[in-house]
Amino acid sequence: MNLNIESEILAKIRPKPEERAKVYEVISKVVKLLRAKLEKLKAKVEVEGSVAKDTWISGDVDIDIFVLYPENYGVDWVKREGFKAILNTVNSIFEYRIAYAEHPYVQVLVNNIWVDIVPALDIKDPRRCKTTVDRTPHHTRYIKNKLDEKMRDEVRLLKKFMKGIGVYGAEIRVSGFSGYLCELLIIHYGSFRGVLEAASKWKPPIVIDIEGYYGGMIKEVLKKFNNHHIIVVDPVDPNRNVASAVSMESLSKFIAASIMYLKNPSIAFFEPKVIVPNDEVLKSMVKGRGDKVLALKFETPKLHPDILWGEIWKSLKGIMRLLELQGFHVIDYDAWCDEKDTILLIEVLEEELPKVEVRMGPPVYIINNSMDFIGKHLEAKDTVGGPYIRGYRWYVLKRRSMVKPEDYIRFNWRKASISKDIVNSLAKGFELLTGKDVVDASSNSEYKLKLYLFLRKTPPWLQS
Amino acid sequence: MNLNIESEILAKIRPKPEERAKVYEVISKVVKLLRAKLEKLKAKVEVEGSVAKDTWISGDVDIDIFVLYPENYGVDWVKREGFKAILNTVNSIFEYRIAYAEHPYVQVLVNNIWVDIVPALDIKDPRRCKTTVDRTPHHTRYIKNKLDEKMRDEVRLLKKFMKGIGVYGAEIRVSGFSGYLCELLIIHYGSFRGVLEAASKWKPPIVIDIEGYYGGMIKEVLKKFNNHHIIVVDPVDPNRNVASAVSMESLSKFIAASIMYLKNPSIAFFEPKVIVPNDEVLKSMVKGRGDKVLALKFETPKLHPDILWGEIWKSLKGIMRLLELQGFHVIDYDAWCDEKDTILLIEVLEEELPKVEVRMGPPVYIINNSMDFIGKHLEAKDTVGGPYIRGYRWYVLKRRSMVKPEDYIRFNWRKASISKDIVNSLAKGFELLTGKDVVDASSNSEYKLKLYLFLRKTPPWLQS
Repeated sequence: MNLNIESEILAKIRPKPEERAKVYEVISKVVKLLRAKLEKLKAKVEVEGSVAKDTWISGDVDIDIFVLYPENYGVDWVKREGFKAILNTVNSIFEYRIAYAEHPYVQVLVNNIWVDIVPALDIKDPRRCKTTVDRTPHHTRYIKNKLDEKMRDEVRLLKKFMKGIGVYGAEIRVSGFSGYLCELLIIHYGSFRGVLEAASKWKPPIVIDIEGYYGGMIKEVLKKFNNHHIIVVDPVDPNRNVASAVSMESLSKFIAASIMYLKNPSIAFFEPKVIVPNDEVLKSMVKGRGDKVLALKFETPKLHPDILWGEIWKSLKGIMRLLELQGFHVIDYDAWCDEKDTILLIEVLEEELPKVEVRMGPPVYIINNSMDFIGKHLEAKDTVGGPYIRGYRWYVLKRRSMVKPEDYIRFNWRKASISKDIVNSLAKGFELLTGKDVVDASSNSEYKLKLYLFLRKTPPWLQS
Repeated sequence: MNLNIESEILAKIRPKPEERAKVYEVISKVVKLLRAKLEKLKAKVEVEGSVAKDTWISGDVDIDIFVLYPENYGVDWVKREGFKAILNTVNSIFEYRIAYAEHPYVQVLVNNIWVDIVPALDIKDPRRCKTTVDRTPHHTRYIKNKLDEKMRDEVRLLKKFMKGIGVYGAEIRVSGFSGYLCELLIIHYGSFRGVLEAASKWKPPIVIDIEGYYGGMIKEVLKKFNNHHIIVVDPVDPNRNVASAVSMESLSKFIAASIMYLKNPSIAFFEPKVIVPNDEVLKSMVKGRGDKVLALKFETPKLHPDILWGEIWKSLKGIMRLLELQGFHVIDYDAWCDEKDTILLIEVLEEELPKVEVRMGPPVYIINNSMDFIGKHLEAKDTVGGPYIRGYRWYVLKRRSMVKPEDYIRFNWRKASISKDIVNSLAKGFELLTGKDVVDASSNSEYKLKLYLFLRKTPPWLQS
């Protein structure tokens, strides 16, 4: 039955001949053009990524064409001149746009498919690579050498599984497993099943050193990579951990899903079916719960997604700390955004804090501080009891001026550690919604899905 | 002005000649009788305590008469035969009752004054004393030798001050300064003012070694006495800390009151005037506060006060832990009792806990525990969200079955660490009052005073 599931999935995700033909036609057009025009710069033009390695998933193709300039041109030249040479080659022929990762690169629309054209350096020894893009051709070569056709299908299954359980992608939003990492896992463990069986027994920290660069010296590897919870030594550069972007949570989700899948395989791991209930049901979920869900909505800053998501997580943590310092328990947070709006979701145990708080004063034997504390609180209007002595200190009971989490965010958000671009956006204005109004924060169906999963929390693949 | 306050107090607390005469008459009667009847047992009869040392406070006299048997009779003989000999001497002549401290002793009513008659051993070297009562004659002798008339008045002032601020007495209920400790402080610092000036500069731990047994080896003294926050080496036995009963809180209160008195002397330190408001005002204090005050009322177990108060504090701490394990913040507790009723007062920040709680599950890589956790919670009726993964663990959101602190006490008190006698008393039945009903827990005016101070918290002597 399990094998049936996997064959069924494979039949769907293995690219169809007509799909391949379409992709190769697009590649051929772009590569020919670039080779013709950039020969004078001694540039090599190569296909990289999952298309080159033939590990892409049907319906989900990213075409990456790299223009590799001689190593002695240097990183700065590539960033400016190498990029400009590509732009000048394509801008009169294709619809195009400029994108940014580590460097700027060009995207062109060919036969209705967007193709990335990335300038990089052609570096012989991968250990000398200073940027991710310079390293990419080495990764492509390594994987092409190691994978046969059967294993390429196993990579596809693993990628689809990772996507299904929400841990595919090294970008900050996901903090999961990159395509290259999936390929290395298949090379190391031989098959999709092999990877899952290994992962189901993983107890972090995990160390995988395919090329045996460290000769089994686990402690050294752990020390070198700061005890990261999963270390996969890059076969093309032993100083790199391919899994450095994998968060503890993504790793844990993969371990847990591997355990559950092997016990009870189901299509739900690859293709999670989530039926989002209607707004009325969502509203009753938020309302009946007994804790408090907050939605903070503001204009999405114009930033590269990795930078935006970095700022979103940082800001969420800042707001969490703001609330926790007051005594709230933040039990979950997440975010959704589109081009226009960003919505931060925050779940707090307490609908309100107690109206009274204990404030700790100085030790009784620190005279000046004690006098100040007594002077400040003894006759104050918001003092409910004390000052009084417990143990070796003065204390006082104070009436809180605010008790709701939304008030602390509304009035004190500038005291929280929030990223600059999000501060700027909040300063322009924001909406802060609580209770059932959280459902109406956006009418976008992706938002409703995010909110539903946020409330439900149970992963779609989890079955009893 | 300060000296006027102190003279005024002294005039009140120095025993009047007619009061002395009355006391000496009583003593004379009892001593004569005991000497006549117990001569055949080679017993010495001596007056001990504050009367012998002439450091008692007018209107507050404890007459302690000791019957000292030869050392070779041994502790067990004194406890049984020595006690019986006293009892048989007085039982036909005076109204009497039997009391217990370390050993049983006899109390007799003479001219309307209760006199303690205590059997003990006449031990030459105080370091050989195994009981407190055997040590008492040595203390009496030491103090009588060291104090002149002026200093005896200074002791009276210090005792009255300690009483006024609520730290006089080594018994568990107070955990404060004994009379002997007050006398030693006057001997060491010379005067009431001298003690307060020293205490106002104390920063615990405090070490006082009047006879210089340890030659200034502070570290050794601290180690020997387990780093207690105040160590006063007993002049008659260097292995004893006279201040071992003083709690950190009593010490802190004395330090703070010393600081405040020296800055601004007032009669309020010696004779705190607390005007307890009427029940309506007390009720509005409890109600308007925003936290929760609970009163647990049960039948007072028939026990020696020191044992009873030991059990009361232990049980209060047990109830506090029961509540804190659930997530409540207990900010204060206290107790009041008379012969009939005991009332425990507990103040909790939260009127209710959030209706939802986060329960932490096992790490995802501990497979059996994870399976159990998922099996237990996935379909459970009281599961609000999850199970879900955060970090490396499973979690689940559960609906609480109880949210009020009074419910946890009412239904789960048997799970708390409560002393046996109080458990027995609770098992017979108890009242658990909250909110304004706390005021009606007893009509006793001492209870109302206790409750008022519990709510107000500010010590009566604290002025801005």
